[in-house]
Amino acid sequence: MVQIPPIFWIVPVAGILTLAFAAWLIVSIMRKPTGTPQMKEIGDMIFEGAWAFLKRQYSTIAIFSVVVAIVIGIVVGLLPAEEMLQKAGYSMFTVGLYTAIAVLVGAICSGISGSIGMYIAVKSNVRCAAAAQKSLNEAVTVALRGGAVSGFLITALSLIGVTVIFFAFGGATTPQLSPHLIVGFGFGASFVALFAQLGGGIYTKAADMGADLVGKVEAGIPEDDPRNAAVIADLVGDNVGDCAGRGADLFESTAAENIGAMILGIVAYLATQNVAWILFPLCVRGFGMIASMIGLLIVKAKENENAMNSLNRGYFVSIALSLIGMAITVYFMLFNDPKFGGPTVWWLFAAGAVGIITSVVVIFVTQYYTESRYKPVQDIAEASKTGPATNIVMGVAVGYETTLATALVIGVALLLSYWFGTLSGVPGAGAFGTAVATMGMLMTCPYVLSMDTFGPITDNANGINEMAGAGPEIRKITDRLDAVGNTTKALTKGYALVSAGLAAFLLFQSYLDRVAFLRGGTFDSVNIARIEVFVGALLAAMIVYWFSSLAIRSVGKTAGDIISAVRKQFKDHPGIMAGTEKPNYGEIVDITAKAGLREMIAPALIPVLAPVIIGLLFKYLSPSYDAAQVVAALLMVGTIAGIMLASFMNNGGGAWDNAKKMIEDDQLKDASGKVLGKGSDAHKAAVVGDTVGDPFKDTAGPSLHVLIKLLSTITLVLCPIFV
Amino acid sequence: MVQIPPIFWIVPVAGILTLAFAAWLIVSIMRKPTGTPQMKEIGDMIFEGAWAFLKRQYSTIAIFSVVVAIVIGIVVGLLPAEEMLQKAGYSMFTVGLYTAIAVLVGAICSGISGSIGMYIAVKSNVRCAAAAQKSLNEAVTVALRGGAVSGFLITALSLIGVTVIFFAFGGATTPQLSPHLIVGFGFGASFVALFAQLGGGIYTKAADMGADLVGKVEAGIPEDDPRNAAVIADLVGDNVGDCAGRGADLFESTAAENIGAMILGIVAYLATQNVAWILFPLCVRGFGMIASMIGLLIVKAKENENAMNSLNRGYFVSIALSLIGMAITVYFMLFNDPKFGGPTVWWLFAAGAVGIITSVVVIFVTQYYTESRYKPVQDIAEASKTGPATNIVMGVAVGYETTLATALVIGVALLLSYWFGTLSGVPGAGAFGTAVATMGMLMTCPYVLSMDTFGPITDNANGINEMAGAGPEIRKITDRLDAVGNTTKALTKGYALVSAGLAAFLLFQSYLDRVAFLRGGTFDSVNIARIEVFVGALLAAMIVYWFSSLAIRSVGKTAGDIISAVRKQFKDHPGIMAGTEKPNYGEIVDITAKAGLREMIAPALIPVLAPVIIGLLFKYLSPSYDAAQVVAALLMVGTIAGIMLASFMNNGGGAWDNAKKMIEDDQLKDASGKVLGKGSDAHKAAVVGDTVGDPFKDTAGPSLHVLIKLLSTITLVLCPIFV
Repeated sequence: MVQIPPIFWIVPVAGILTLAFAAWLIVSIMRKPTGTPQMKEIGDMIFEGAWAFLKRQYSTIAIFSVVVAIVIGIVVGLLPAEEMLQKAGYSMFTVGLYTAIAVLVGAICSGISGSIGMYIAVKSNVRCAAAAQKSLNEAVTVALRGGAVSGFLITALSLIGVTVIFFAFGGATTPQLSPHLIVGFGFGASFVALFAQLGGGIYTKAADMGADLVGKVEAGIPEDDPRNAAVIADLVGDNVGDCAGRGADLFESTAAENIGAMILGIVAYLATQNVAWILFPLCVRGFGMIASMIGLLIVKAKENENAMNSLNRGYFVSIALSLIGMAITVYFMLFNDPKFGGPTVWWLFAAGAVGIITSVVVIFVTQYYTESRYKPVQDIAEASKTGPATNIVMGVAVGYETTLATALVIGVALLLSYWFGTLSGVPGAGAFGTAVATMGMLMTCPYVLSMDTFGPITDNANGINEMAGAGPEIRKITDRLDAVGNTTKALTKGYALVSAGLAAFLLFQSYLDRVAFLRGGTFDSVNIARIEVFVGALLAAMIVYWFSSLAIRSVGKTAGDIISAVRKQFKDHPGIMAGTEKPNYGEIVDITAKAGLREMIAPALIPVLAPVIIGLLFKYLSPSYDAAQVVAALLMVGTIAGIMLASFMNNGGGAWDNAKKMIEDDQLKDASGKVLGKGSDAHKAAVVGDTVGDPFKDTAGPSLHVLIKLLSTITLVLCPIFV
Repeated sequence: MVQIPPIFWIVPVAGILTLAFAAWLIVSIMRKPTGTPQMKEIGDMIFEGAWAFLKRQYSTIAIFSVVVAIVIGIVVGLLPAEEMLQKAGYSMFTVGLYTAIAVLVGAICSGISGSIGMYIAVKSNVRCAAAAQKSLNEAVTVALRGGAVSGFLITALSLIGVTVIFFAFGGATTPQLSPHLIVGFGFGASFVALFAQLGGGIYTKAADMGADLVGKVEAGIPEDDPRNAAVIADLVGDNVGDCAGRGADLFESTAAENIGAMILGIVAYLATQNVAWILFPLCVRGFGMIASMIGLLIVKAKENENAMNSLNRGYFVSIALSLIGMAITVYFMLFNDPKFGGPTVWWLFAAGAVGIITSVVVIFVTQYYTESRYKPVQDIAEASKTGPATNIVMGVAVGYETTLATALVIGVALLLSYWFGTLSGVPGAGAFGTAVATMGMLMTCPYVLSMDTFGPITDNANGINEMAGAGPEIRKITDRLDAVGNTTKALTKGYALVSAGLAAFLLFQSYLDRVAFLRGGTFDSVNIARIEVFVGALLAAMIVYWFSSLAIRSVGKTAGDIISAVRKQFKDHPGIMAGTEKPNYGEIVDITAKAGLREMIAPALIPVLAPVIIGLLFKYLSPSYDAAQVVAALLMVGTIAGIMLASFMNNGGGAWDNAKKMIEDDQLKDASGKVLGKGSDAHKAAVVGDTVGDPFKDTAGPSLHVLIKLLSTITLVLCPIFV
């Protein structure tokens, strides 16, 4: 039985506190009024659509998850014995069983977080719309609390899940083995996340594109017009894509990166027998949750203030508290370590601080590239004057350019935290330093996720008010909130992307550690100068493009289905256009759901199957090939390629979106000083850019974050078969 | 003095024969009539514009080249002594001097090939236009012969240049050192190629976009309408971009890859003292030139046949003859090698055959993705029905998808040729096998390059006939040829890209060999699991995007300048629109040239400076970093990222272009069977896609090929400073 450091109590305390906090938030939101009966009716329709999709989606995912868990369990269970595990009394049958269980538990936890988070978000929409009729502050509070339910519930479940399964799988007796047994948890989470993000992302953007093209472009009616049969599907999409998708994404981030960091702590544990090295990441997360909670509680919107400023204030409080929490964890867990303790462990604090500060830098960089105050978005708006082609070309140029900032931020953070790690003198602490930085960056995850879900809630509130015919004063409030929500959504994507990049190195190192553990001996070289490793790297970069291609195509196909169906309704029921007949919203919701589910499968299979096929192919193709290195290169270069492509698509999409908004806000003028606003040719060009950016930033881009981490978790789980 | 194998005579024979062939072609073209006085006048304007730009461009490049040659010479000359070179009696001063000379000679040869090739191409335009008034066959002959001048002259100069400098720098006495002294030749060539491709690419697409936007879109006049002041600049652009740019690209490909292959042959030479291992690549090229020449001579267009079919026939003859040439070279050079000779050397023939066959596969793959007969282009045309946004989204999806084929073709070719190489039993022959494959693929380079330049010549001929008001019958001929030219241009890009990918491994291995040579000992591991190597790889992927961003932006900016200037002409001289006054073509040509030259510099500096800065930074940042590995990873992952991005942009652009052409050919119908042709909304949407694709496929994409190889050559030349 190992000695658990007393400060570890922060984990259950933070976990339970967070759950209680989320419960309190839920109660406080559900008590808010739902507005007029018409609003309630619209809200109910959105709820039904979203819930029906989620139920179907998770039924499909459940079947896949069970199959995958069983296959992985059998494959791992049938492998030749892993020496170290056998010595500790585990048969491979047990290992297979444990892995399968971990996969399932991870999948279930992810499903629960996604469902509850979205349930509350949908319930918050209509309440936020109603609150906007009272005051801005009231609306901000509802939207932020609704978002916070997701944010806190998801991170709490991930922390509690990892902790429980760690101890259930022998963490208190053989903590050096337990992390190897629970890697399935991370994989289960990323597996669900990929489907959730893809399915939701396809749904939301297909509905958005379909509704826009058939409504705004073809029929010439405004956005969110109740005569458009696709409008409810569009509103549903915001919930199933942005809420459920991003929630699942960050659930798996925190889970997989936690487990990876624990694996990296094993080396120091083995040298010291101090389990604090393995438990450290969990404690950091505990403090991060409390820091986020306090930050969120102090957010109060002032009537005459940009809501973004109050959100930023709360964020900076969370950041400051996270730094303190990181210092406390380092001091109480590591400072008194008999072997590596003492002042040098403060270098690990420095590594953690790098991660925390990185999350602030990301915010600024993303704002620079996606807000209309800065040059990139202005360039795109300017380019819209000469038509859609120049708008697109400029948007692509801006999107490509963002890779510069993304790569520099990730590169500097990795080099610094690795260097600080090595300065601590702990064995293997270079990689551990990057792990601490990643955990530092993820401390504020609950807060960031709350801000993120704020986005779709305000977006929906705006849509409900539009559909219910609310007055211009009220619409102005929800419009303002909607714009803030667009920014927070862009920020979260930047955050998710950079944290995925930072985590890549840690996950990759834990893959190497795991191969070494299974092979016995060391494994620390991935030689890209070998022909098979180079080809593996080339294929990895290709996979990223191929996946994105399929994801984007799926949106196009589904949007096509929607357009045909809406057209048919317009044609068969002329009363719809006249406003005398209600369109059949349910039919479109249904079609979108079916198509979204059908279309998510092909792209989702690529990152699941590709590493397995490529790994096994190279294992059996020639005895001179080292499949473990090929898979490692696949992982690393796939990650690099994925980060770059996602940076282009996320930020390019965000910039196009805001260039359009900038024109709608009458901020673009022609050479003679005439305003080029809504309805101008420049605006039409910018709408094209926005539509192109939609599947980039809300389907392919965010799915790539998950893909990157799925590549890591699947190779972690299946690494026994490549060795 | 080493023993030169008798078959080496093929090199001077092929070189001189090719030069004579080119001279004969020039004479035969210049004798052709130039058509009506009006056509001659237009042709002269194009010639003047193109020539003026080339003069200015090469003056700028010359200054840069001299500076770079001197800097490299000094840097290399001041380095601590390279042991092996010193032993052979070379001081570092001599090495620096030789390198500087090699850089300059490479640059000069590249400049000469570019200039002469373009000179003849421009002279051929008007003659092709005139020939079209007689017959299709006549026009095909002129266009193909004009293109062939470039194709053959460029490859001959590259072969002769490498051979002469090899022997001038001690190839006959110390052939194991000479390849190391001439790496500068490859760098000089790629340096010029980068500027030529960027400057020309920016010029051509800025003029194209500018002319289209201000003419077709704003003023509503047809393409190539003489009232558009930008139309001559547009025609000039085809010559400076497509002819001079691609010529420089393939000149440096053949040169750099030749030298790289020679470096890889050194290992076998040292083991056998048989210089055939080093001279092998030169002989292969010699046979390739003869094979291409015969292939070209048999091309005869039949009046009722698609010109593409006759071009294909010639190509297949070249392929068959190349296979025979490869077999002859292997037999006469390697079969009788005292140590490694015998039947196993046929495995090297197999490796060469892989390369030759790869070039055929590339043709089919590129055709599949860019011709309207196949699904991808049809999908894009179909998506145009719902507007420009869906057209763009589908084009991106198709472009992304092409990376699948590109990666598989390159991956399979590399694995096979490496494997065949190792089966030959020659030391280090895995990498040598990929080198033989690359040389095999490049055998048909003169033919492919001839087909490529065929494109801009027919494009210009079409434009001249349009401007000169030729009848519909004649226009139909040049229109048909123009469409064939579009296909051949797309094919060449696929060919250039895949050969760059294939060459990457060989160039990378020669970098490793060179580091080993300089360090003494071996250097065969590039461990991407090291933090600094991983970050180097990340930065490499970023560089590719950043470079493309700048290249695309440059096109946009230059197009903006053109649009303003043409607008001003329309405004100040109302007679232009009425057709009573001639626009000032020269002004626009001048503006485009100035802007093109200004805008090419920033993107060109990235790949030149980035490896140097990153290499030196990591060298001095920490003693634990291995800068040579960082640079190697930069090179390899930069190559992978570049191939993928270029595949997307080249093929996506080609597909957009042909989707537009497909609609213009009345091949798209709506649900009711009505043709959606020129002027329909679908056509307008497709024009947007085509315009977006232009800077992708003609500026950024092809420049990336050069960037990939420049990364290789600069690291090869400067590798002493990273060691």
